[in-house]
Amino acid sequence: MKTARIAFEGDIHSAVSTSEGLLLANGKVVEEEEVVWLPPVKPVTCFALGLNYIDHASELEFQAPEEPLVFLKGPNTFIGHNGRTKRPCDVTNMHYECELAVVIGHQAKKVHQQAAYDYVAGYTIANDYAFRDYLENYYRPNLRVKNRDHSTPIGPWLVDAADVEDPMNLNLRTFVNGELVQEGSTKDMIFGVPYLIEYLSSFMTLNPGDVILTGTPKGTIDTKVGDEVVTEIEGLGRLKNTVE
Amino acid sequence: MKTARIAFEGDIHSAVSTSEGLLLANGKVVEEEEVVWLPPVKPVTCFALGLNYIDHASELEFQAPEEPLVFLKGPNTFIGHNGRTKRPCDVTNMHYECELAVVIGHQAKKVHQQAAYDYVAGYTIANDYAFRDYLENYYRPNLRVKNRDHSTPIGPWLVDAADVEDPMNLNLRTFVNGELVQEGSTKDMIFGVPYLIEYLSSFMTLNPGDVILTGTPKGTIDTKVGDEVVTEIEGLGRLKNTVE
Repeated sequence: MKTARIAFEGDIHSAVSTSEGLLLANGKVVEEEEVVWLPPVKPVTCFALGLNYIDHASELEFQAPEEPLVFLKGPNTFIGHNGRTKRPCDVTNMHYECELAVVIGHQAKKVHQQAAYDYVAGYTIANDYAFRDYLENYYRPNLRVKNRDHSTPIGPWLVDAADVEDPMNLNLRTFVNGELVQEGSTKDMIFGVPYLIEYLSSFMTLNPGDVILTGTPKGTIDTKVGDEVVTEIEGLGRLKNTVE
Repeated sequence: MKTARIAFEGDIHSAVSTSEGLLLANGKVVEEEEVVWLPPVKPVTCFALGLNYIDHASELEFQAPEEPLVFLKGPNTFIGHNGRTKRPCDVTNMHYECELAVVIGHQAKKVHQQAAYDYVAGYTIANDYAFRDYLENYYRPNLRVKNRDHSTPIGPWLVDAADVEDPMNLNLRTFVNGELVQEGSTKDMIFGVPYLIEYLSSFMTLNPGDVILTGTPKGTIDTKVGDEVVTEIEGLGRLKNTVE
């Protein structure tokens, strides 16, 4: 099963996909084009990984990390499917980043990686835009790179964990204005989903609604105002965003 | 005026200080010792500053930063006055850090520092413990240093901005088991409160309930299990925490 959160006629609804359109929790069926898509979860704590694909680390001329490079993102950064993300006037590099987003379903403390999938509610797609101009701060990436308003489209669907056979073997692709510009597979992550849950839960508690953005593969290039950026992950759908 | 959030007889209350004790919003007066103190605000986004006092940067043998070094903290890290913070078995350095915490009261976008105080609801005290063992990760400080459960006592009071004459001229002091171990003044911040609000709001939106932990002065030493750590700031009160 896959569910969305949408705004329609002044209310927020949970919705599932049917052949006739979006079935809202109140029984109404509406067209996908009629609604405003919200992030499918409201992240409590949102973790994001830096340099978690070996080819992306090489592309940026960084060494592959020896432990997960994790930073936090604030609630201001999220926006849903079909949303618009501003390119600030003063940046020269605004890179899309197609990422598998893992949504935690149960409180997790000191979880071994072999049991880690038991704590996952489901998966969705994130486009964790980076404004690379400011990367080489003491903190990299710093907040100006990764914490701007609405700079993280996420969705459209939360796909139940039970419906994703192997999260560590999914193709990721990004299209800018219809052209394929990034392609990779979650199997090339340096630190996989089970290890990330073991790592984070070893020193802090993960709670339901927490989200882990697992990093992006090689192939990020600058986007311009007006670009339509579609990030897709096998089995999870297509997340569309426009740069404005 | 100063207000606290406390738990008492199964409910959460807003409370103010009176000569008879804590006056709850429902009119009841209770002793300070009878209640569980909660963080006086539930932070939406919590920012924390690294190396924002020149003497502390020197103490750690770092260069003073040229722009604010800001990272985010998750909601799992906060705990109220009189709380207990665990010293993990596997760390050798657990440092208290007495910090002025600024609570945002109004949505702020592209605010000039001369108008910045208009956006402040009030101030409180934080003890932003650092587990320094892991400092020299690619991200410094990384989540293991700064994002453990209950590692950030905050409170006891939210003191209204109108009652703090000059936030940039307050003495900070920390006592471990009654002994003075850290002393400084907010006037020695590298990036002061008005500039931090200008800086953050220049690239993202600050929202009511957001909290900025403004960094700590020189004088952080290791704490041990059983230590009672009191952080105090002139005019804001005394925040007590026990290491367990």
